[in-house]
Amino acid sequence: MEKQYRIGILGATGAVGREMLKVLEEYNIPVREVRLLASARSEGTKLPFKGDELTVHTAGPGSFEGLDFVLGAVGKGLAKTFAPAIKSSGAVFIDNSSSFRMNPEVPLIVPEINPEDIKLHNGIISNPNCSTIITLMAVAGIARLSPIESMVACTYQAVSGAGEAGIVALESEINKVVSGEEITPSAFPAQIAMNVIPFIGSEKENGYTDEEMKMQNEGRKILHLPDMTCTCTCVRVPVMRSHSISVTVRTKDILDLDDVRKAIASFPGVVLADDLSGRDYPTPLDTSGQDLVYVGRIRRDLTCPNGITLWCCGDQIRKGAAANAVQILKKIIGA
Amino acid sequence: MEKQYRIGILGATGAVGREMLKVLEEYNIPVREVRLLASARSEGTKLPFKGDELTVHTAGPGSFEGLDFVLGAVGKGLAKTFAPAIKSSGAVFIDNSSSFRMNPEVPLIVPEINPEDIKLHNGIISNPNCSTIITLMAVAGIARLSPIESMVACTYQAVSGAGEAGIVALESEINKVVSGEEITPSAFPAQIAMNVIPFIGSEKENGYTDEEMKMQNEGRKILHLPDMTCTCTCVRVPVMRSHSISVTVRTKDILDLDDVRKAIASFPGVVLADDLSGRDYPTPLDTSGQDLVYVGRIRRDLTCPNGITLWCCGDQIRKGAAANAVQILKKIIGA
Repeated sequence: MEKQYRIGILGATGAVGREMLKVLEEYNIPVREVRLLASARSEGTKLPFKGDELTVHTAGPGSFEGLDFVLGAVGKGLAKTFAPAIKSSGAVFIDNSSSFRMNPEVPLIVPEINPEDIKLHNGIISNPNCSTIITLMAVAGIARLSPIESMVACTYQAVSGAGEAGIVALESEINKVVSGEEITPSAFPAQIAMNVIPFIGSEKENGYTDEEMKMQNEGRKILHLPDMTCTCTCVRVPVMRSHSISVTVRTKDILDLDDVRKAIASFPGVVLADDLSGRDYPTPLDTSGQDLVYVGRIRRDLTCPNGITLWCCGDQIRKGAAANAVQILKKIIGA
Repeated sequence: MEKQYRIGILGATGAVGREMLKVLEEYNIPVREVRLLASARSEGTKLPFKGDELTVHTAGPGSFEGLDFVLGAVGKGLAKTFAPAIKSSGAVFIDNSSSFRMNPEVPLIVPEINPEDIKLHNGIISNPNCSTIITLMAVAGIARLSPIESMVACTYQAVSGAGEAGIVALESEINKVVSGEEITPSAFPAQIAMNVIPFIGSEKENGYTDEEMKMQNEGRKILHLPDMTCTCTCVRVPVMRSHSISVTVRTKDILDLDDVRKAIASFPGVVLADDLSGRDYPTPLDTSGQDLVYVGRIRRDLTCPNGITLWCCGDQIRKGAAANAVQILKKIIGA
């Protein structure tokens, strides 16, 4: 008989937590128990799973006993708070927060790119930043042709990157735009409806944000390219789910564009949508609600002979967060 | 007595044409006559000017007699059609279309950057592409410190770049998003509400769009840097008026960041909004309805020691089109 697992979701009522539950069902992960954990505020909330209803319980130090895996969908503070209890329960913690990503003892995994790193875990595996996952999925095929030396990336990030609050803020603001009511920003530092905001996260001393530095720092670890540099600008746009990224990569060698297209098209989890004259290019709306990353607008970087520039889109709640985490779990159990 | 001018606006009823009329009034250009010309469809339309009403007439070959200047706010086909008649009338044609921009006999002008080129005109002066104007305004101060060798630019372009039809499309789509009605794209190749579209203009054989190539081609001419290269990705975003551009420039020399900030802050028509910890950075909403270009998020390019990356916003109907054209006229008459 197939082995069945006891899986906890920490932060089960947020945008990513709810999606993790959906993905567990969709991927038909063999579960014996799914334990939904959240803050006391959500105690008693019911969420649908496989035609049934599961009840959310308040997370506490004793919540993890007997679990094989905990999928983390909470912020970095709570992830750090609960990590010791999860570890002592014996469960593997697949954490979506940024808490442990750069810890050298914690593997940082995109299953299609560096699955071999999973086995190095010591109880915690980190799920990378959403924009980083989507960008790296798009360029990993290129990196296999020739090492990436640098990237210049500009993001067009959906409001769902700020969780449920981001989604609610855009919905509410759009309603107010139509009705002509005054808008007071809530989840974002400025109005996001009919606007874009070039600031996500918190500022670092070099003028970048922590969100922008993740592309370089996490990218180096996932691609095993410790010297890769990345200039990233993270921008919030009034889109619900999928993140888009315009990225220019410079590789060690000069690559043939057709080889690049083939490498991208054959990379697992990636779809080539690259026919401008046929109006085939990815948009966030077209790529939402699924786990694939779409890549198009592939062309030569006009500023550098060994550069390639492209555009990619992927659902940040799915491949950028929940689906990637469940894919890590799937890889571990060999399902 | 101050000299007064007879000024025609060709395409007076479009988004740019209407704004040209407003700017003529706001700048208090000394006018003896303002002649509004458009297609037959708009014959008889009244537009407000200095507390009065002006009537729109149908443009024809004989429409330009007696004019000193014609401000062109029509597409490139019509600009080409009417250029001979304007020329033979003796008026100077300040054309916002792309028809004549790369013609070596036609100056391509951003008055703050290359005013000295105006005098080379032979009856036609071109107004540059909107994203190009805003980007170059942001980086021209840097170019004066050290020649720009290359730029990697990603745009976040407002719907007004597609004229009145673009504005109407976003308004109508946002209403339908709120009411839950189905959306059929009109002005853009895909739904623009809650979406972004990485395709503006028409495709060229190198995989870029004509809109994207303008940044390099027009940039070279305006900055007098014939070898400058530019990799540009043009993306439409659901914003009404201001275009935003994330741009990474590489200069011949390694520059000091404080020198760069000073050069940008002291450049005419540019405002420095560059204090991330004070949450001061430009957004399209904050910069709409005015002629200044705002620059922020200035920091080192992490991929190249002689690179600088920054973010800029400017109202594309104003500085990106109508205001720049009237500023050229103002420069000529010395007002």
